[in-house]
Amino acid sequence: MKKLQERIIRDGVLKSGDVLKVDSFLNHQIDVALLEDLAAEFHRRFADLSITKVLTIESSGIAIAYPVARAFGVPLLTAKKSASVNLDGDLYVAEVDSYARGKHTRVIISKKYLTPADRVLIIDDFLANGCTLQGLISIVEEAEASVEGCGIAIEKGYLEGGQRIRNLGYRLESLAIIDAMDPDAGTVTFRTEQ
Amino acid sequence: MKKLQERIIRDGVLKSGDVLKVDSFLNHQIDVALLEDLAAEFHRRFADLSITKVLTIESSGIAIAYPVARAFGVPLLTAKKSASVNLDGDLYVAEVDSYARGKHTRVIISKKYLTPADRVLIIDDFLANGCTLQGLISIVEEAEASVEGCGIAIEKGYLEGGQRIRNLGYRLESLAIIDAMDPDAGTVTFRTEQ
Repeated sequence: MKKLQERIIRDGVLKSGDVLKVDSFLNHQIDVALLEDLAAEFHRRFADLSITKVLTIESSGIAIAYPVARAFGVPLLTAKKSASVNLDGDLYVAEVDSYARGKHTRVIISKKYLTPADRVLIIDDFLANGCTLQGLISIVEEAEASVEGCGIAIEKGYLEGGQRIRNLGYRLESLAIIDAMDPDAGTVTFRTEQ
Repeated sequence: MKKLQERIIRDGVLKSGDVLKVDSFLNHQIDVALLEDLAAEFHRRFADLSITKVLTIESSGIAIAYPVARAFGVPLLTAKKSASVNLDGDLYVAEVDSYARGKHTRVIISKKYLTPADRVLIIDDFLANGCTLQGLISIVEEAEASVEGCGIAIEKGYLEGGQRIRNLGYRLESLAIIDAMDPDAGTVTFRTEQ
């Protein structure tokens, strides 16, 4: 998606350690107009599917997934990373290694919000090694609901996460796929859209 | 707001320990249509203000604050509870005691996203003892931006948080104010709207 690529080039900041900071428009300060455009694009790409629920994970996925759920007219389910007094009862829990934070985290969803009748579209901001997405997928499968598709804003295409998900047969759409980042030169190379 | 009160009565679950679970529509599974209505009501109540930024805190405030920011046509700033590789540089940090989680947490905002020119509307899902809201307010003040208003979905009016904020002179609008909860009887008593 040209508009997202241009925004990453204009406002993204590359850091050593494979870090692309997009906190000025995507995950700290949020450009709502841009996210509306991303949501419209996700809706267009998955328009052929009968989605019953959009699923994301706290916290940076929520702002992107919210307008997608609104576009499809379905509830938004937000997986948690920790249990709390507000989340009890029977829970699905997947153990994942978070790439961005470099640590082990959990994906938690209350069992009562996923049923075998659910046709789920998973939305998240970043896809790197794919562990978080795999955790979300594994929970949807455990609930015997169907994973209809996965929509990602920014995929680090030089890592194996996206390919692994596609190899498993899941329909994965990323709005910007980065094939290379050079923090010294300050350059980002995007995969050409098919 | 009648619609929110009715939803709390219908789908909220009372638990001992002063817990009102609204995870079926507000903070785990999210009823997007309801949140659109809440956002429209916030926009109506604060329509006289010239807002430049909506501020909330991760993660359950984000879905409520997003459509409010959209309604005002301004960016959404999402305070973090922990620093990460995606949030570095100069930071505002407020130390707060979280009521819901019963533990000490932090409110973190990158300094570059709040300036003295900003007129801020703070939005969150719950207000209990008000510590999180005080943390957000203190950071806006520290940035020499102005706190134009605070919009809360559900205020626990029998706790002192809301009164404390109002006594400090801040304009605080809560869409549903709970004056009493009885988990044994399963009843919630709302404050009558003025």
